[in-house]
Amino acid sequence: MSQKWVYEFAEGSKDMKGLLGGKGANLAEMTNLGLPVPPGFTITTEACNTYLATGGFPEGLMDQVREALDSLESKMGKTLGDVNDPLLVSVRSGSKFSMPGMMDTVLNLGLNDESVKGLAAQTENERFAQDSYRRFIQMFGKIVMDIDGEKFEELLDEAKKAIGTEADTDLTAQDLSELVLKFKALYASETGSDFPQDPADQLSLAIKAVFESWNNNRARVYRRREKISDDLGTAVNVQSMVFGNKGEDSGTGVAFTRNPATGEKGHYGDYLPNAQGEDVVSGSRNAHPLTFLEERHPDCYSRLIEIMGILEGHYRDMCDIEFTVEQGTLWMLQTRVGKRTAVAALRLAVEFETEGAIDKKEAVGRVDPHALDQLLHPQFDPDADFEIIAKGMNASPGAAVGAVVFTSAAAVEAAEDGREVVLVRRMTDPDDLPGMIAANGILTSAGGKTSHAAVVSRGMGKPCVCGAEAIKIGKDSFSVGDVVVNEGDVISIDGSTGIVVLGAVPTKEPELSPEFRTVLGWADEYRRMGVWANADTPEDALRARDFGAEGIGLCRTEHMFLGERLPIIQRFILAESDLDEEAALGDLLEVQRDDFVGIFEAMDGLPVTIRLLDPPLHEFLPHREDLRIEMAELESAGKKDSDEYREKERFSRATLEWEEANPMLGLRGCRLGLYKPGLYTMQVRAIIEAAVIRKKAGGDPRVEIMVPLVVMAEELQRLRKEIVATATTVMSAEGVEVDYTVGTMIEVPRAALTAGEVAQDADFFSFGTNDLTQTAWAFSRDDVEAKLIPHYMESGLLTRNPFETVDPAGVGRLVEIAVKEGREAKAGLKIGVCGEHGGDPESITFFEGAGLDYVSCSPFRVPVARLAAAQASIGLGGDATR
Amino acid sequence: MSQKWVYEFAEGSKDMKGLLGGKGANLAEMTNLGLPVPPGFTITTEACNTYLATGGFPEGLMDQVREALDSLESKMGKTLGDVNDPLLVSVRSGSKFSMPGMMDTVLNLGLNDESVKGLAAQTENERFAQDSYRRFIQMFGKIVMDIDGEKFEELLDEAKKAIGTEADTDLTAQDLSELVLKFKALYASETGSDFPQDPADQLSLAIKAVFESWNNNRARVYRRREKISDDLGTAVNVQSMVFGNKGEDSGTGVAFTRNPATGEKGHYGDYLPNAQGEDVVSGSRNAHPLTFLEERHPDCYSRLIEIMGILEGHYRDMCDIEFTVEQGTLWMLQTRVGKRTAVAALRLAVEFETEGAIDKKEAVGRVDPHALDQLLHPQFDPDADFEIIAKGMNASPGAAVGAVVFTSAAAVEAAEDGREVVLVRRMTDPDDLPGMIAANGILTSAGGKTSHAAVVSRGMGKPCVCGAEAIKIGKDSFSVGDVVVNEGDVISIDGSTGIVVLGAVPTKEPELSPEFRTVLGWADEYRRMGVWANADTPEDALRARDFGAEGIGLCRTEHMFLGERLPIIQRFILAESDLDEEAALGDLLEVQRDDFVGIFEAMDGLPVTIRLLDPPLHEFLPHREDLRIEMAELESAGKKDSDEYREKERFSRATLEWEEANPMLGLRGCRLGLYKPGLYTMQVRAIIEAAVIRKKAGGDPRVEIMVPLVVMAEELQRLRKEIVATATTVMSAEGVEVDYTVGTMIEVPRAALTAGEVAQDADFFSFGTNDLTQTAWAFSRDDVEAKLIPHYMESGLLTRNPFETVDPAGVGRLVEIAVKEGREAKAGLKIGVCGEHGGDPESITFFEGAGLDYVSCSPFRVPVARLAAAQASIGLGGDATR
Repeated sequence: MSQKWVYEFAEGSKDMKGLLGGKGANLAEMTNLGLPVPPGFTITTEACNTYLATGGFPEGLMDQVREALDSLESKMGKTLGDVNDPLLVSVRSGSKFSMPGMMDTVLNLGLNDESVKGLAAQTENERFAQDSYRRFIQMFGKIVMDIDGEKFEELLDEAKKAIGTEADTDLTAQDLSELVLKFKALYASETGSDFPQDPADQLSLAIKAVFESWNNNRARVYRRREKISDDLGTAVNVQSMVFGNKGEDSGTGVAFTRNPATGEKGHYGDYLPNAQGEDVVSGSRNAHPLTFLEERHPDCYSRLIEIMGILEGHYRDMCDIEFTVEQGTLWMLQTRVGKRTAVAALRLAVEFETEGAIDKKEAVGRVDPHALDQLLHPQFDPDADFEIIAKGMNASPGAAVGAVVFTSAAAVEAAEDGREVVLVRRMTDPDDLPGMIAANGILTSAGGKTSHAAVVSRGMGKPCVCGAEAIKIGKDSFSVGDVVVNEGDVISIDGSTGIVVLGAVPTKEPELSPEFRTVLGWADEYRRMGVWANADTPEDALRARDFGAEGIGLCRTEHMFLGERLPIIQRFILAESDLDEEAALGDLLEVQRDDFVGIFEAMDGLPVTIRLLDPPLHEFLPHREDLRIEMAELESAGKKDSDEYREKERFSRATLEWEEANPMLGLRGCRLGLYKPGLYTMQVRAIIEAAVIRKKAGGDPRVEIMVPLVVMAEELQRLRKEIVATATTVMSAEGVEVDYTVGTMIEVPRAALTAGEVAQDADFFSFGTNDLTQTAWAFSRDDVEAKLIPHYMESGLLTRNPFETVDPAGVGRLVEIAVKEGREAKAGLKIGVCGEHGGDPESITFFEGAGLDYVSCSPFRVPVARLAAAQASIGLGGDATR
Repeated sequence: MSQKWVYEFAEGSKDMKGLLGGKGANLAEMTNLGLPVPPGFTITTEACNTYLATGGFPEGLMDQVREALDSLESKMGKTLGDVNDPLLVSVRSGSKFSMPGMMDTVLNLGLNDESVKGLAAQTENERFAQDSYRRFIQMFGKIVMDIDGEKFEELLDEAKKAIGTEADTDLTAQDLSELVLKFKALYASETGSDFPQDPADQLSLAIKAVFESWNNNRARVYRRREKISDDLGTAVNVQSMVFGNKGEDSGTGVAFTRNPATGEKGHYGDYLPNAQGEDVVSGSRNAHPLTFLEERHPDCYSRLIEIMGILEGHYRDMCDIEFTVEQGTLWMLQTRVGKRTAVAALRLAVEFETEGAIDKKEAVGRVDPHALDQLLHPQFDPDADFEIIAKGMNASPGAAVGAVVFTSAAAVEAAEDGREVVLVRRMTDPDDLPGMIAANGILTSAGGKTSHAAVVSRGMGKPCVCGAEAIKIGKDSFSVGDVVVNEGDVISIDGSTGIVVLGAVPTKEPELSPEFRTVLGWADEYRRMGVWANADTPEDALRARDFGAEGIGLCRTEHMFLGERLPIIQRFILAESDLDEEAALGDLLEVQRDDFVGIFEAMDGLPVTIRLLDPPLHEFLPHREDLRIEMAELESAGKKDSDEYREKERFSRATLEWEEANPMLGLRGCRLGLYKPGLYTMQVRAIIEAAVIRKKAGGDPRVEIMVPLVVMAEELQRLRKEIVATATTVMSAEGVEVDYTVGTMIEVPRAALTAGEVAQDADFFSFGTNDLTQTAWAFSRDDVEAKLIPHYMESGLLTRNPFETVDPAGVGRLVEIAVKEGREAKAGLKIGVCGEHGGDPESITFFEGAGLDYVSCSPFRVPVARLAAAQASIGLGGDATR
């Protein structure tokens, strides 16, 4: 006996989405609930997959289809192709996950030169019958036989022109009947065979077409974007047709059981009289609210409301419904759990819980963590009209409006004058920080989602669109195609979507609903992992704490060397004697200590993980290229003897000493700490002194000192000794004991591979998965994210950007090795992650599985991470595997 | 009962070097052979390690010393400190591995104010006794009590000045006796206590001093350099003194049982009458050949010759001997297997095998593979005098002499004029290749042993000294301290030692002895792994084949795009239409095909692994910085409208498009092959067409196509399909079948971690351990080798440069994972290594253990690798663990 390839609707259920697709499973469920569903059957996704693998129908499929059709015909009392009262069916695709408009549908199947007469007789409407037949040939020709749709449209236009009209509705039954002949002729000339008159042939060709539509280009691209696996396949639903276009007593509609935009209670939908479903979806005619149905067909309406109640009660969630009224009779064509905005998702979760439909755990699982992010930032007003001039990557969410500036200095100047600006640069680097702080938003033409601009913007919660490659930046203008945008022109960017608009778009401020806090509160009850934040300033720390962060997992200290402090670190680098070096370090100590006091105060009672200096020294120097050009200019101006020239020469020499071919793999992190020991000693001194100050003031500083870029246990061992020595000296001088721990980042493959040794001297591990991804993949984020990763995604080599979602087979395996071997060497070793992945829901699911103790992310991602960690704990998290 | 800490000489053997040190073990062996060894005993290295760990003598040690001393006294019939006939002893360090001059020795121990009289009486030489006492106090004070030796020397100088002489020998017994008083006073004032009169105290302090000398700075540095572990500890040998300085019937000497420089048969040594061992070693007096002893003391001489025969027969190797003649009696003070030159090592191995003393396997184990390298390159004449002006890294062995040039173009010009030059640059890059080919040698002031200059030079077998940081390079001169070397001045460099000399040093051409070929032939019989070579040209391939390479493991194709072909690849990069791009590719196809024909011909019948293009495109463009400066100069010269300016502008735009922040982790390797598919298709076409040409000519090309920088199985899968499609097209067009395989480099951690998947589409793996080290360690070789690695080595964080010897815990673990999982996925998968480590003996031992099929190295390293692979096979290879 062959496999079961075909299920009548009554044989399925909503839990069989994998086999029957979403549409088929829900049609089955409604059928079994006794709701008025036009009868039909579903061909399984397995049949599709077998067809796609072998190129032919699986054995037994068409026999089972014939049996199901027989059953359908006897149920309906009609026969496909019948000359008197033909059965017509729709053939629709339906995969496990909704892919609206991506695959193919054929309506009115069963019509032929004979049955069209039966349809006319039955409906007493010759025009309707001819129009249905014409539409069927057109749809079948285009979709099943791949004939260019334009050719049918041309014939239709000719027919209309012949009678001097522009409206389809002016075509008479006769006109349409002639059009049918022309369509059939077109069909024959394009395919080399006549339009199939046997409904069995029509059906078999249509099933094939639906199967094959799984692999059409549109569908592939859509799946890639939505991260849907290519091997799910589609089911095929064959269902008896009902017609909403049989006159004013017919119609079609869509409805939600609650408001999908706000989550508000109450029915919500559109109804279009005398129309088919396609007309509603295409929006070609203005729809009426559901009250229209209530007025015209109160019986239908009350039955619909009753059914919506049944469905919501049954699905325990807001449902999305498609229905048709055929001459006063209500038919249900589709239902599913409805899509919703983040605002609605939160409200629905809370209200269904209050109503007792679901428990708190299920409520926590009902909200998509990705969607939360948009609630925390201003958005373009959804009612605003605007024209997009470019699209980049959605690097840091939120909308920003301001006048274009091209330099950090101009941004700072504008901010001082109270002007609002958007900073536009090819890429940013640490020099641009003051400008980034001053600007409302940042737009770059190069670099990816983990470029400097993106990472820093996310950290600040500042909108950023990056890698908008169409933008060509000049000295005081940028151009996109023909559009030239000058310095001072106002633009708007939306970092949630990557959109760039010329002119000011009105924005909407975010509102944190009470439901938001309720759902996150529930999430906290279920979550195992801690959620910490990456924050470098007291302001960021406070914001993170407000969002629920339970500690700081990454406090970068390099930003504390920039701005007005840059000259001090430059003095350190250019120092020509130990004395000069020590003097510069002394000045740095003063300012660093104040920074730390502020952060410890903001996070009083919670752990603060301070990473010792990480970037290479040349990041604190001017660009060598610029220096050389400036020197060349001074030289040609005869100013080679000036102090200015000599100053630049000193800097140029320093850049030569410190510049690197691959800074990512160079003299930075703990290497610099070991090479220039004074730096780390100064930082540890500042940290411990700050903690002492806080303790003396009655505070409760929780200090965690983190050593970056360790690749050998020996490095950490040496530095730990030095850190402890410095801390001990400070504490005994001050007469105050401070509890502190010393840990390390695991951000290079070798550190993960030797984690057992590294753990000996570590109180904690924190995975730096950005750098771990860069090194494990040999992917410099600055270099591959703008060009290579998009290329790989488009061509299907990559389904996820490994900088957004942790790669389980490579980086994830290193994480697992390090967790296992680190804890084998030191039981209970505290382990977290502070890379960008710490705020990504699918990665959080992975980290839950790997047994991490906490994730740390930018302050604005904290709510997302709290929810994602809870979903991971209760086994409802998104999956990071490809 | 406490542990046995002390062994009398008769209790030990030569196989106990770990416990007794080399000296102690060999003294024991000679004692047991019945040779005349002054009696004594050895304190074990374990006692030393216990002392160093606890800071005190281990329990029972001094009791055992007392017992051994009792036994010694009764054997000698003398007593330590005896007023009539005192026993005197030497106390010498001796560790497992010879560390000449690194640790401490105390002679004449046992002398005090009383026993000095006994010594005078016994020797009937008051002056000798007083001089011995004075020397003992001086040596004891300096070495055991750490008194500044200069202070003793000053007192000695004063004594000589007082009697108006400059020679020690003019001091009378009386003078010396007074000096003893002054030395004792100095001792007391410096240490705060009197010079110890009790010989037991003297001995216990001396033992402590020897123990502690294990950790003195000199010894630590030496061990680091020689890769000797810090935890071995030293033994202490206490031996009754014999005196070679008792008059003309006494003397001391060193001898080798064969010539250690050439391996020639026959005795070889120096003899110094009336002297102590220290005098021979210090070279303060001219020594006589052994024939001098034969003339003066024929009995002693014939006994010595007899003993040398016994030792060589016993050790089955050339021995190195120290002996003393005391008043006509011969004493053996030390023996060991003698150090030898590479030439001698080969000759000795062959001759001992011929003589039947050892078998071929042992002979193969007798030659240090590291030493072979020097035989393959010209050397500075060892008899030449010269002054070193700078030292860099010994990047590529061999000596080179030539006039200094600073640009590639100047080198090429000089070569065309027949002038010999050394190319001096800060670092080299691919643009410098023509100059590197034209020069006799290369000297750089930056970059490490795996910098571009080093790697390319080694590949060409061209001498290179790199990273000579003391050298400051200007426009047409360089300076080292005060020395200024102008363009055109002649310098000499020795790439085997890293030495730079001003002026021409005479050099010696290498001679390949028949023994060289014999030993390598034997090695081939024992070796399991294949030895292939990295070669990019037919010339290199032929040389490699001559050195015994069994295939090419890495043929880099990027060098084929340089020199006069550079404009073609630049046309490709700058192409503004597909047509331009295809035209450039067409031209590249022509030249590449010819290259491959030549290489296949040179390696006919042997596998040739061709790596598809690896470097990023910007390596083929001028430096952006230079372009910008040239453009600025043109602009200020009012030439902004010139073609030259526009040309530079085009290049500048291209560099902007292709430049990268971290090229090592950027758009290169197979990424470029996927991003710009035409490139790889062209290369595969050229390869297969070349193979077809060779086949048509009756040749036997063995083609292996290697895809670089794979990080995901999907990349290889996609490219393999494209490669096969191209190859199939070419073969069917030509009507010739070519066997070829498609494999991949494993050079990024993720590739190793997903090797099971990658293996699906790979016929072979080849580890690129250079890049694997760079990525696994986050060590950019260009950036860390000159500064960081030396710093880490000096400070003891690293004991080996991971770019020279593969790091077992990190990179090695990735290799093991990839081998295991690759072969699990595909049984019998061929796996090799083509990184620099393929020519490093310790790494080769690791690869043998990991189960690799072959190693591939630069042609000049092939003999080294053949020998090292054989030693690894028979379990005699050097160890890569730290």
